[in-house]
Amino acid sequence: MNDSHNAATRQRAFERGASAQPEYDSSSWLHTALLANPKARGLSAFAAPWSFVNGVSATWTILYCVGAVNTREAAMRSFEAAYSLVFTALGFLLVFRLSRAAVRFWECRTCFGNIVVGSRNFVDYLLASAKGREVEAIEDACAWLCAFAVCSKQFLRAQRDVPAEQLAGILSEDDRLRAENARHPPLFCIMMVRRAISRAFGAEKGESVSDAVRGESISRGLNAQVDFLVLNEGALERLRSTKLPMVYVVHLRTFLVGYLLTMPFVFASQWRWGTIPAVAIVSFVLLGIEGSATECEIPFSPDHANHLRMDQYIQAVLLSVGSFLAWDERTDAVASS
Amino acid sequence: MNDSHNAATRQRAFERGASAQPEYDSSSWLHTALLANPKARGLSAFAAPWSFVNGVSATWTILYCVGAVNTREAAMRSFEAAYSLVFTALGFLLVFRLSRAAVRFWECRTCFGNIVVGSRNFVDYLLASAKGREVEAIEDACAWLCAFAVCSKQFLRAQRDVPAEQLAGILSEDDRLRAENARHPPLFCIMMVRRAISRAFGAEKGESVSDAVRGESISRGLNAQVDFLVLNEGALERLRSTKLPMVYVVHLRTFLVGYLLTMPFVFASQWRWGTIPAVAIVSFVLLGIEGSATECEIPFSPDHANHLRMDQYIQAVLLSVGSFLAWDERTDAVASS
Amino acid sequence: MNDSHNAATRQRAFERGASAQPEYDSSSWLHTALLANPKARGLSAFAAPWSFVNGVSATWTILYCVGAVNTREAAMRSFEAAYSLVFTALGFLLVFRLSRAAVRFWECRTCFGNIVVGSRNFVDYLLASAKGREVEAIEDACAWLCAFAVCSKQFLRAQRDVPAEQLAGILSEDDRLRAENARHPPLFCIMMVRRAISRAFGAEKGESVSDAVRGESISRGLNAQVDFLVLNEGALERLRSTKLPMVYVVHLRTFLVGYLLTMPFVFASQWRWGTIPAVAIVSFVLLGIEGSATECEIPFSPDHANHLRMDQYIQAVLLSVGSFLAWDERTDAVASS
Amino acid sequence: MNDSHNAATRQRAFERGASAQPEYDSSSWLHTALLANPKARGLSAFAAPWSFVNGVSATWTILYCVGAVNTREAAMRSFEAAYSLVFTALGFLLVFRLSRAAVRFWECRTCFGNIVVGSRNFVDYLLASAKGREVEAIEDACAWLCAFAVCSKQFLRAQRDVPAEQLAGILSEDDRLRAENARHPPLFCIMMVRRAISRAFGAEKGESVSDAVRGESISRGLNAQVDFLVLNEGALERLRSTKLPMVYVVHLRTFLVGYLLTMPFVFASQWRWGTIPAVAIVSFVLLGIEGSATECEIPFSPDHANHLRMDQYIQAVLLSVGSFLAWDERTDAVASS
Amino acid sequence: MNDSHNAATRQRAFERGASAQPEYDSSSWLHTALLANPKARGLSAFAAPWSFVNGVSATWTILYCVGAVNTREAAMRSFEAAYSLVFTALGFLLVFRLSRAAVRFWECRTCFGNIVVGSRNFVDYLLASAKGREVEAIEDACAWLCAFAVCSKQFLRAQRDVPAEQLAGILSEDDRLRAENARHPPLFCIMMVRRAISRAFGAEKGESVSDAVRGESISRGLNAQVDFLVLNEGALERLRSTKLPMVYVVHLRTFLVGYLLTMPFVFASQWRWGTIPAVAIVSFVLLGIEGSATECEIPFSPDHANHLRMDQYIQAVLLSVGSFLAWDERTDAVASS
Repeated sequence: MNDSHNAATRQRAFERGASAQPEYDSSSWLHTALLANPKARGLSAFAAPWSFVNGVSATWTILYCVGAVNTREAAMRSFEAAYSLVFTALGFLLVFRLSRAAVRFWECRTCFGNIVVGSRNFVDYLLASAKGREVEAIEDACAWLCAFAVCSKQFLRAQRDVPAEQLAGILSEDDRLRAENARHPPLFCIMMVRRAISRAFGAEKGESVSDAVRGESISRGLNAQVDFLVLNEGALERLRSTKLPMVYVVHLRTFLVGYLLTMPFVFASQWRWGTIPAVAIVSFVLLGIEGSATECEIPFSPDHANHLRMDQYIQAVLLSVGSFLAWDERTDAVASS
Repeated sequence: MNDSHNAATRQRAFERGASAQPEYDSSSWLHTALLANPKARGLSAFAAPWSFVNGVSATWTILYCVGAVNTREAAMRSFEAAYSLVFTALGFLLVFRLSRAAVRFWECRTCFGNIVVGSRNFVDYLLASAKGREVEAIEDACAWLCAFAVCSKQFLRAQRDVPAEQLAGILSEDDRLRAENARHPPLFCIMMVRRAISRAFGAEKGESVSDAVRGESISRGLNAQVDFLVLNEGALERLRSTKLPMVYVVHLRTFLVGYLLTMPFVFASQWRWGTIPAVAIVSFVLLGIEGSATECEIPFSPDHANHLRMDQYIQAVLLSVGSFLAWDERTDAVASS
Repeated sequence: MNDSHNAATRQRAFERGASAQPEYDSSSWLHTALLANPKARGLSAFAAPWSFVNGVSATWTILYCVGAVNTREAAMRSFEAAYSLVFTALGFLLVFRLSRAAVRFWECRTCFGNIVVGSRNFVDYLLASAKGREVEAIEDACAWLCAFAVCSKQFLRAQRDVPAEQLAGILSEDDRLRAENARHPPLFCIMMVRRAISRAFGAEKGESVSDAVRGESISRGLNAQVDFLVLNEGALERLRSTKLPMVYVVHLRTFLVGYLLTMPFVFASQWRWGTIPAVAIVSFVLLGIEGSATECEIPFSPDHANHLRMDQYIQAVLLSVGSFLAWDERTDAVASS
Repeated sequence: MNDSHNAATRQRAFERGASAQPEYDSSSWLHTALLANPKARGLSAFAAPWSFVNGVSATWTILYCVGAVNTREAAMRSFEAAYSLVFTALGFLLVFRLSRAAVRFWECRTCFGNIVVGSRNFVDYLLASAKGREVEAIEDACAWLCAFAVCSKQFLRAQRDVPAEQLAGILSEDDRLRAENARHPPLFCIMMVRRAISRAFGAEKGESVSDAVRGESISRGLNAQVDFLVLNEGALERLRSTKLPMVYVVHLRTFLVGYLLTMPFVFASQWRWGTIPAVAIVSFVLLGIEGSATECEIPFSPDHANHLRMDQYIQAVLLSVGSFLAWDERTDAVASS
Repeated sequence: MNDSHNAATRQRAFERGASAQPEYDSSSWLHTALLANPKARGLSAFAAPWSFVNGVSATWTILYCVGAVNTREAAMRSFEAAYSLVFTALGFLLVFRLSRAAVRFWECRTCFGNIVVGSRNFVDYLLASAKGREVEAIEDACAWLCAFAVCSKQFLRAQRDVPAEQLAGILSEDDRLRAENARHPPLFCIMMVRRAISRAFGAEKGESVSDAVRGESISRGLNAQVDFLVLNEGALERLRSTKLPMVYVVHLRTFLVGYLLTMPFVFASQWRWGTIPAVAIVSFVLLGIEGSATECEIPFSPDHANHLRMDQYIQAVLLSVGSFLAWDERTDAVASS
């Protein structure tokens, strides 16, 4: 796994993927406030309703200001009052949605962090307990663990392939295809990990009691660590497949669009030509907040700038596994010398 | 379990159930804001109070505007001031209720996710440890685990039957009826799972110490995984049977209805005919938020559009179990060849 | 435990207790908003300050409107401005207190849910592991577990008796009295559970190694489940004995009463006779929110309508234990036939 | 440990300590809103800034109202507008700080609750497993556990002594002094507990396999329970040594003092003599909220009325240990009769 | 490890580091509100945008007040209205960002606390179980654990060196360099800890069953405690490498800067010369809140005053390890005497 050619191949593959979700420098106001590009702003998530609202706003304002249409001042005042009442509720709903999305984002990130940490604990404990056990089974467990990490990423992104480059030097082409063709690739890899544990530490005919005690305890410990990985991968599947209840989103958006759409009709008589920029700003702010929530709700896409840096996390798993294997060889070399 | 006929029967049964809770596309503003159907909006949860409030509002406004009734301006001003004070508190209460309901919804979803993940870990660990154990007991444990998932769904939905189609090829008709007739079907299935574990890994007369060490450790590991399933099923029962304390809901609704009902009396003199649409909008927004909370509070109904997609989750359990069994057979075939 | 006479006695006893905390139907606005009775509204928690505030308000308004007293308009304006500043802070504090109380309520409910679920896991695992162990010890463990549940309820409600009816057919009168007379009845029952575990699975002179391995593992597993029960019972004791820090409540109530008490003095010149109903409404809303928090803060009373349905939860424990025992007998009968 | 003389000595000692943090009756508005004493109100935490702000306010108002000074109306209006903008942000910050302090308080309380519950589980499990083990080691473990609880309290309160009265009949004077002189008394006690466990359940030359299996399993179980106690004591140390990041507190207080200090200058022209009471009230409310947070942030003092009732919690540990020991003796007596 | 020379060297090294993050006294309003230095205020985080906004504000106000420029009153009014709508949303976003940063800060602190507590439990349990095991391996485990703590600190601060002074008397220069040159120093140390555990408690040729039972159980217990340390170190890596999704920060800052930048244009006609100080205050408050969040978001720098006191936490680890070793020697001396 640690030969330099394959390592470089994998590195290139992960870096290519990771480039779609660049880091940002939060200490630079220039880049975060002024020069942020449309992708980082998640504009696509609210471009449609914004254009619609402002199209209506501009049309009405022009018609009104050139005198083509008229409104009854008195009737408008009731709407204005109703507006201010509704607005607080709207604000609460927006913030509620935004903070739910942020909590979800952070939960997703934590699950990935747990997969990284869980892999480290698994591999380190496995290698520390490996003395006198079948070497091939130990290596298999490590390899399929790496495959699990890569397959989880692909599965969560709804990509059906298991990229050969990212597993170069880890899985044989044959094994890679078996994972790729499985109904649920991450679970398939996990099954292979558990089978490797069984081969290395499982019951053997005529084993001594001491061996049984040692092997069984290690086997159970390793299986518990695998459980932890499955738990986190499963939590990510759950987060990906579950949005806010539809009724929340429908109500919020209905109120939001209704609110913004009627703004020009209510305020044109007071603001006149100022209506166009004022509606543009208010709608950009409010729809922008909703758009941020939508953008971060299911952060599993490979090309959204604000989504999870999954390539980077999975690379961390593989680098850690590689380090432990390298250290283990060197430690063994020292021990046997 | 994996023969194609039974698998198809089960799939059809689950898909029929799942169709009542469709996915929605949060990137489409058209479908979420404008074209959402009444079911998705949870209209039934607040249709009654909304009609009542607006009936009163329309009646009073008409009477007032045609001059049939009168109000004392001065007295009304005190109510208006009291209104604005009360409104903030009302807004906070509404948001509080809404966010509690959302947290509950998400807790329910997490419990179901844990049942899916817990089942995967249980079956995979069971099969990886099964070598040399009684095959029938292993298969029984898998079958009753699937039955547990289906029975939990039915029990939480307060449906007394255990549908034969959803367990086609998994449980014999005899066993299905035993589960259906038990006082608490999910617990009955769990008991059967534990009994199967005992048969496969429990103490045997004259077993070797190594076998006792291995069997006991695996038995305890599996029982701990069963505990996790029971914990989550129990948490769902708890969530289903516990609402917000009544005093919260009673206060909130009393204030809300009182507020909306007196609006036309206070504002008709200012807004005149505009009172009817203004009250209609404000009451739709505020009652709509309360309605969303009510709709999502106990999300266990089989036919509410915003409720948990339980058929889909349970299907995931059965598909995972099926996959592990299929992979196991193939792995065994490879190993024995 | 499962003979029908005793089961019926217990059921009656629990139902009598449970009737003080009825379910409510959150889909009925009629019953939750309009017809809710004073107990459900928790009126007793804020009747005193409400009467006091409104007595002062009515007295002053009458004196002012009949011209018996006077206020300096100018001075009042400064109070009005200070009011609006203070009000936001007051609103935040109220909501903060309310949401703390709700979180506490839910924590209490979760602990009881855990006691129910923990009991199920304990009994099911115990019976599944009981083969070849002393029958009496197994039955003792189940009986004392039921006694633990009942004693916890009584202890948390600060009731010193252990009602014979609720443990009919489970504990002998002698044992019941020993529990009742113990300094801490729930802990006494737990101690008896652990002693029964020791008798059934503990070390025996000259036991085989396999028996030691099996017995010790099961014993430790069961003790861990008992730990979980004690953890939750202890958490309930903690919740019962800990309120919000006094300084929070004192500040909030001082501001609230000060605010409401001075309202008539500040606003009587503007609102005149309208002051009385306006102050009545505002104080009902604000004190009602505080009252809801007070009502739900320590929800362990046997007769408050909004408190925990503890009789129902404990009954669930006993019914589950009963079911497992009944299923076990039948399974045994089948196995031995 | 259970002789009545020592028990009474300990009780007196704890009750003396506990009297500084009395219970309060949240159902009495009279005592919580009107008659609360200055200690309960945490006045000392904000007396200084309140005096300063109101000194300035009174001085300026007097100078202004007697005509000694003047302000430019126009310039003041800009400040008034800036004020209302800043105020919302200030309110949010205040509430944020208050709720952080409350969460911390509750976390501290939970840790102490866990120490109580963890001690119960430890002692009960220890005694239930003690048959055939060295009696002195068992008693030592119980005694040092009690010492751990007392030392934790003292250590968290930054009191260097280990009071002899609170450990009367539990630790010899010699042992008490060893704990008192250790760099970290709670950890010293824990070390002694673990050493006692080792003596009772640790490896012995030539022990039988069954004894090794039993002893090792119990030893590991007890050590895990000790880990839990250390975890909670450590969490309390962490909570005691960590406040909110300084930048939060500095910003909040700077804004708060700046806001209150300039109030009289901005509003004196409108409110005139009313400025003095108005500023007094607003500053009392806002500084009172900040003061509540400061008061409850590090709730480990032995004499603040709002701080943790640590004497009571530790007494609960000792009473529980005493009960278990008493019950154990009686159970043993019954068993041996 | 406990010789006084090395201990003093380490103490000096840690205290040098710790001096950059001084404690503050929250009871002193003088030092927290008035005299706080710029570093404590985190001024550097928002100096740039504040200067920019106020430069524009001053320029425009001067031009306007000397009559060099003009604005259309009517158009400005629409902006003012839009402003007040946007402001609430802005306030919510600011608070949301601030509370996320505070939660992150506290999570980081908790992880470090867990590393301290986990180290204590590991070393105490290790020494209590060490009887009859290879002394050198036990000492190695303690030494590499200390090295893990120091390396984690350096790694999280992105400092590549492993300072010799902080590990004086603990690690040989050779070992220190091996850690320093590893790709991931903390993981390297952890690997060395696990290897030491294996040497002390791992399988040995021809060991008795009792020895295998004891050794394996202790080994698994210790490895689980190591897992806990890795989990927390990994969580810190995750917190360091993950900010809020960029879209949130970009939106918030864009709105904030847009809001503040246009303030003078909108309000200069009303506030005239007062515009300059008013904008200065409002922008200081709002940017100050954003700055506090930015300052505390990734609190791993060695020289920010508001960041984690990592030197102090790591010193606590080393002091605890030292105490346990010292107590152990003394206990051993007593036991062997």
